[in-house]
Order: sequence, then C-alpha cells, then structure tokens
Amino acid sequence: MPLSINSERLWDRHMALATIGATDKGGVNRPALSDLDGAARRQLATWAREAGLDLQTDAIGNLFMIFPGTEPNLAPVLTGSHADSQPTGGKFDGAYGVLAGLETLCAFRDAGIRTRRSVATVAWTNEEGSRFTPGLMGSGVYVGRLTIPEFEDHTDGKGVTVTTALVDFLATTPDIPEAPFPTPSHYIEAHIEQGPVLEAAGKTIGVVTAIQGARWFRVSLGGEEAHAGTTPRRNRRDPMVSASRILARLLAEADDGEADITRFTVGQIEAFPGSPNTVPGRVVFTIDLRHPEVAALDRYEARIRAAAAELAVPCDVEVSQVFDAPPTRFEPELVDRIRDTVGTLGYSHMDLPSGALHDAANMAKICPSAMIFIPCEKGISHNEAEAATPADVAAGTHVLANALLDLAEPV
Amino acid sequence: MPLSINSERLWDRHMALATIGATDKGGVNRPALSDLDGAARRQLATWAREAGLDLQTDAIGNLFMIFPGTEPNLAPVLTGSHADSQPTGGKFDGAYGVLAGLETLCAFRDAGIRTRRSVATVAWTNEEGSRFTPGLMGSGVYVGRLTIPEFEDHTDGKGVTVTTALVDFLATTPDIPEAPFPTPSHYIEAHIEQGPVLEAAGKTIGVVTAIQGARWFRVSLGGEEAHAGTTPRRNRRDPMVSASRILARLLAEADDGEADITRFTVGQIEAFPGSPNTVPGRVVFTIDLRHPEVAALDRYEARIRAAAAELAVPCDVEVSQVFDAPPTRFEPELVDRIRDTVGTLGYSHMDLPSGALHDAANMAKICPSAMIFIPCEKGISHNEAEAATPADVAAGTHVLANALLDLAEPV
Repeated sequence: MPLSINSERLWDRHMALATIGATDKGGVNRPALSDLDGAARRQLATWAREAGLDLQTDAIGNLFMIFPGTEPNLAPVLTGSHADSQPTGGKFDGAYGVLAGLETLCAFRDAGIRTRRSVATVAWTNEEGSRFTPGLMGSGVYVGRLTIPEFEDHTDGKGVTVTTALVDFLATTPDIPEAPFPTPSHYIEAHIEQGPVLEAAGKTIGVVTAIQGARWFRVSLGGEEAHAGTTPRRNRRDPMVSASRILARLLAEADDGEADITRFTVGQIEAFPGSPNTVPGRVVFTIDLRHPEVAALDRYEARIRAAAAELAVPCDVEVSQVFDAPPTRFEPELVDRIRDTVGTLGYSHMDLPSGALHDAANMAKICPSAMIFIPCEKGISHNEAEAATPADVAAGTHVLANALLDLAEPV
Repeated sequence: MPLSINSERLWDRHMALATIGATDKGGVNRPALSDLDGAARRQLATWAREAGLDLQTDAIGNLFMIFPGTEPNLAPVLTGSHADSQPTGGKFDGAYGVLAGLETLCAFRDAGIRTRRSVATVAWTNEEGSRFTPGLMGSGVYVGRLTIPEFEDHTDGKGVTVTTALVDFLATTPDIPEAPFPTPSHYIEAHIEQGPVLEAAGKTIGVVTAIQGARWFRVSLGGEEAHAGTTPRRNRRDPMVSASRILARLLAEADDGEADITRFTVGQIEAFPGSPNTVPGRVVFTIDLRHPEVAALDRYEARIRAAAAELAVPCDVEVSQVFDAPPTRFEPELVDRIRDTVGTLGYSHMDLPSGALHDAANMAKICPSAMIFIPCEKGISHNEAEAATPADVAAGTHVLANALLDLAEPV
C-alpha cells in the first residue's frame, strides 16, 4: 500500500513560500543569502518544527530538516533542492524540491511511519549563483568540491561579501545547531524540468538518467578590414564568410534527427568593427554544446575544431574552450528503483537527461544520486511566468516520498 | 605632341597640402569647413593666383580655379575633387583630384596654351560627410540635388551648424568673388582607386566606366528565447540557425567567379539577448550589396528576399532596405576619349567601375562625366597609411591634362 501525501498542504506551502520575494508578475525574486532568503529559511524551519522534525545547519548555511531514523548510526537518506531564486525567477525552481522533501517527511509523520535510516530534506545555499558566484555553492561545499575561503570575499552588485551575507543569514535562525551533516546513503532531488520535453510527450514524471555535460567555446575568426565597395571578393579575407560556412556546417552536424539529444547553441555573435560598409576584420561567436555522453561531447568538439580549421581559410581561427561541466550519469540502480516506484504508482513517465545543472551533480560525486522531474508549462523557467500544475506537483512528491521510504528501510 | 606636366611641382604640392591637418601617423585630418579646411583653401587659392588663374566660389563654398578660354560664352570644362578628409584620412583621397586639376591649368600656362573653352578645377565642399551630413554636399548643391536649407542646421559633434562653419570658411578667402559657376560641357575627376584592382593587375591608369550602385539591407530574424541546455532542437525557433542558412546561401550566390564584380558584405551581425547559454530570440544583420548594373542589383535583391523568406522558417523575418544609391554609368563617348588619350600616352590601363561614391556621381546628372583612377598601395584608403607613388600621381595627371586639353578645344 503506497504512502499518500497531503497534496493540498504541499500546494499551499508553494503558494505561501512564493509570497516571500513575490514579484508583480507572479514570480519570485529571492536572492541567495538575502533577507528574503532568510525569511524563507525561517518559514521552512517553522513548518519543520510543526512537524516535529529536527533541524541542523552547516558552515555554509545549508538547512537540513531531519526525520530521525531508529538507527542513528546508519547513513541518512537525503533529498532537497534550494530556496534561492533568479532575479526574475518563478515559484517552483528549487522551491519544489525543498517542499516535496518537506512534505515527504510530514507524510511520514502523518502515517506514523518509522524508518531505520534518518531521512532529511535540505535547502542548499545559493544554487543559482546570480547574486554571488559560484552557483551550486552550498552543495559544492558540502561535497568538498568548494571551500569557503575560495569565495568568501566574492561580492554582490552592492559590494556585500559572501561572509557578511552568510553571517546575517545564519543569524535569522540562531536556534538551529550548526554541525556537519553526515554523508547520505542516497540523494534524490525533485525539480521542475525547466524544459518542454515532458509536457510535449504528455508524461507526468521524468526519470532523470543524467545531467548532460556542457562545453562552451569561443570561436574567433581573424581576417582583414576592407572597404565594402572597393574590395573585390578575391582580395578579401572576410571572417563573416568563414563564420557562415562554419556555422552552416556545424548546425547541420549537430542535427541528430529523431533522437534530438545534442544541444548546440550559438547565442552570441559579433563582427568588428561592426560597420555595414566595412568588411569585418574579426568575427567572434560562442558555442554552447551539451550532451549526456562524454564521447559525444568529444566527437562534436572534434567536429567544431575540424570545421573551424578547414573552413576558416583564408582567415585565421582560434577555438578556445571557456567552460567545461562534465556529464553526470546518475546511479543506474537508483534510477531503476525510481522508475519502478513510478510504475507502481501508475504515473505516465519517461527517461530523460537533465538539460540544466543541479545540486544533484555535486551529490553524485559522493553517493548514489538521482532526480525526479515534473513538467513545467511550455518548458519556461528562470522566468516569472514559470508554472506547474497542482496535480504534477503532487505526483512528483508522491513518487519522491515512496522512493525515499523504500531507501530509508521502514521498520 | 602631348602636353607635359611638372611632376615635381605636382608631388611637392601634395606633400605641402598634406602638412595642413597632418597626423602623427603620416595621414591627414582635415574636417570639412574647419579652420584646417580653410587653410587648405587659402593654399590652393595662393597657388592658383601664382599661376594667374581666376578664382570664384559659390554659396556652398565650392572653390573654382579657372583657366579662362577665348570664348567666355562657351560652357567650360570642369575637373576637380575635394580637399576635406576623413578623421584618419590619407594624403591623396580628394587632394589628388584637386591638385591634378590645378597642375593641368598650370601646365597650360607653362606651355602658353590657349583654349576656346574655359577650364576650371574645383575643390568641392564636404565630400566626406564625416563632420557634417550629407556627404557630396558641395557637388550636390551645385547640381541641384541638394539645397542648403535642407542641411544648414545639421551640426557636428560639438554642436556647430553647417551655417556657422560655412560663414567662417568663406571668410578665409574674402577676396574671392561669389557667383554661381556655369554648367560645364564635361566633367572629369581624377582619384586614387581606393581599392586593390589596379595594383593587382599591374596597371597605371584605371578608365572608370561607372560608379557602382549600392543597396543596404537590414535583415531581422525573430524566433524565441530559450534555455540552451533544456530546449530540444525540435522545440526551438532559433534565428541563428536561420541566419546561418541564409548567409551561407547568399554568400555562395554572390560569388560571381572570375568576373568578381558583385560586392556582398555582411559587416554587422548581432544576436539578442546575446548570452552564450540562451537560444537567441532575435538575430539582426546588415547586407551591403553593390554592382554597377541596376538589373544585377535587382536580381540580387530578389535573391536576398527569396532566401530570407524560404530559409527563415520557423522564424519570422523582415528585410528592409535602408540605403539606395543607384549606379552611375559614365558617358561612353567621354570614357572612350579618355581611353584613347591613355593609349596615346602609352600608359598601361584597364577599364573598371568605381567601388566608392564620388562627386562625379552628382556631376554625371548634369553633363557628360568620367573619372581617372591611379593605383593606391594595397588598395588602402580612408586610412592614414594611404599611399600612391610619384610616378602614378604624375601619370594620372598627365592623362587628365591631355584629356582636358582635348575637350577645351585648343586654338
């Protein structure tokens, strides 16, 4: 008999949390480590206390809401996401994973469940990275990929340092003890998809198999400035001609047909000096390449370099990699368990990789990890118009709760 | 027996005029209607008086240096160019045509020649248009294409109006009478090529058959902003994909092979919002299209519109024409006479169209007109590095002097 959740409470809490930093257009502006982020933290702590959960924080301000297990020495099971938002963010990005986790623990309480392992829901500090760099900060520190001294002097747009903001943030909940949280046995993060795949496929649950890798390149083509009227084609070294050939080929090569897994984006392009009647001396564009498989990233990168070398002539070309986030492959056994849970509960579902980065990418470095996606309207996210339905919000939480219960070993 | 010119005097005057507004890098900065432009005007007037030439100006400040004919009622023959420069211009652009014309009249004097028609050399006001718009101002007013009230309130970067600058400019030569100059029988303008064709072909003289037409277009492609990581290809409306297809096709179509007459330049391109990890919502680029034949311009414009309409899908596209300068076809009979003169004098030569606009485009509207080009180093112009050899400077002037003598009907 699967565990039920309280979908009304779950939805009401989404709406309540969204009032903290609410924007005129129905979105949320809750910068990491801000007073509003602190207010959200207090609200989460209040709900956790009402449910009789334990609370704990750590040096970077990650907030752990804990359902204690009967065998405290066993590694806990962890879920969660983040409560900070983009400046013009939505109600569900991050908040959903935290509230789905909190609802899970409340549902355990409501059902009188006991588990061998503790189960905790975390609100990671500063996932977005839009007020302070780097993003994925809280989970990065937790897994040891980042250390606080690396970024403690980073400032926001007003010159406030991470250190200052963090002290204020921790002071919003002075009664929560600070201690390192132990490494979990498993981590599952629920999140809105932030893309259109589930909605388009008419599926309720996305079983996330991976977080795709991303490589960013800057392609700079150098030719020779010349008068657009007086310079014959044979006397030109026109980097725009090279750029258009390279782009046309790469965009064709990135078309992987029905599979539609490869993400190839040219979001920035500029010609210098940028005068309509001057043959440009330089054209620079960016490539954002993503794929769940390292081998595919390597293959496309080789194609980018080959096309640039071959088609730049007679211009010079430099291809530099400016960002590299390797793919995360989630633990297949854990992914299988989640898919089984979804099947048992009867929701329509599909496997898919995550297009965006998440704290789960950090967690996958230290324990078996996975994610659960629900659809969001038209795939819109990082936008005040971000929307999800109460039914989908509940469905994803229902799956999460039953998957966590299974991992926590009910007694 | 062809007329000779004094090539040493000609070169020395180029070097002397280039000291007025000389830049550190060996170029010239002589803004239209500036004090420096006025100083150049005084220098030209001084040389003209030394040679016993008449002087005349008109309401827009065009300076006419006149070798009087024996039959004052006949239409005069006119040559010339301009003395203003680009902000980082060279020693030869414009100055060459004025000084070649002045040298012609001085050579007439030196040889004791008399002609039925008067022959005049003009320094047109504000050809460049870089201090005050519009360019080709003096010749535009002279031929009636422009009227002074249309632009008299136009200001330079410091808020000075054309009217104010023009009063000061005319005041630099208060002793030169102001009167409309009569319509000439013919106009020939000598100029550096400002392109690499003559140098590459190893020819001394360019017999200019036409000034090519120019049409500028702005192509704006509208799609939909989307997350570069989460949005599958089939869900994108990516204007960069459309742009690269359109550009690749148009650049291929503009390749007219050995003929190499069509000029097709994309000098500006931008993607909005211009973030590496966002599929752009809009891509805008410019096209500068030039060709000596209207039919060819029409044909290429149709191809641009067809490619945009066909390849923009699924994006929206708008192609707007933002500039249109029709081609000028020089008087074939006059062009033939110049070619014959070049042949008689024994200079290597070739026919070619002008890639850039010149005052001759205005003059061609009111009388048989033509141009003579000489090579400039590497085709570089509108640049302080602009260079021409004394031998080429003399050769072009030699051709000009003999062509003008022929048209002036020596007695």
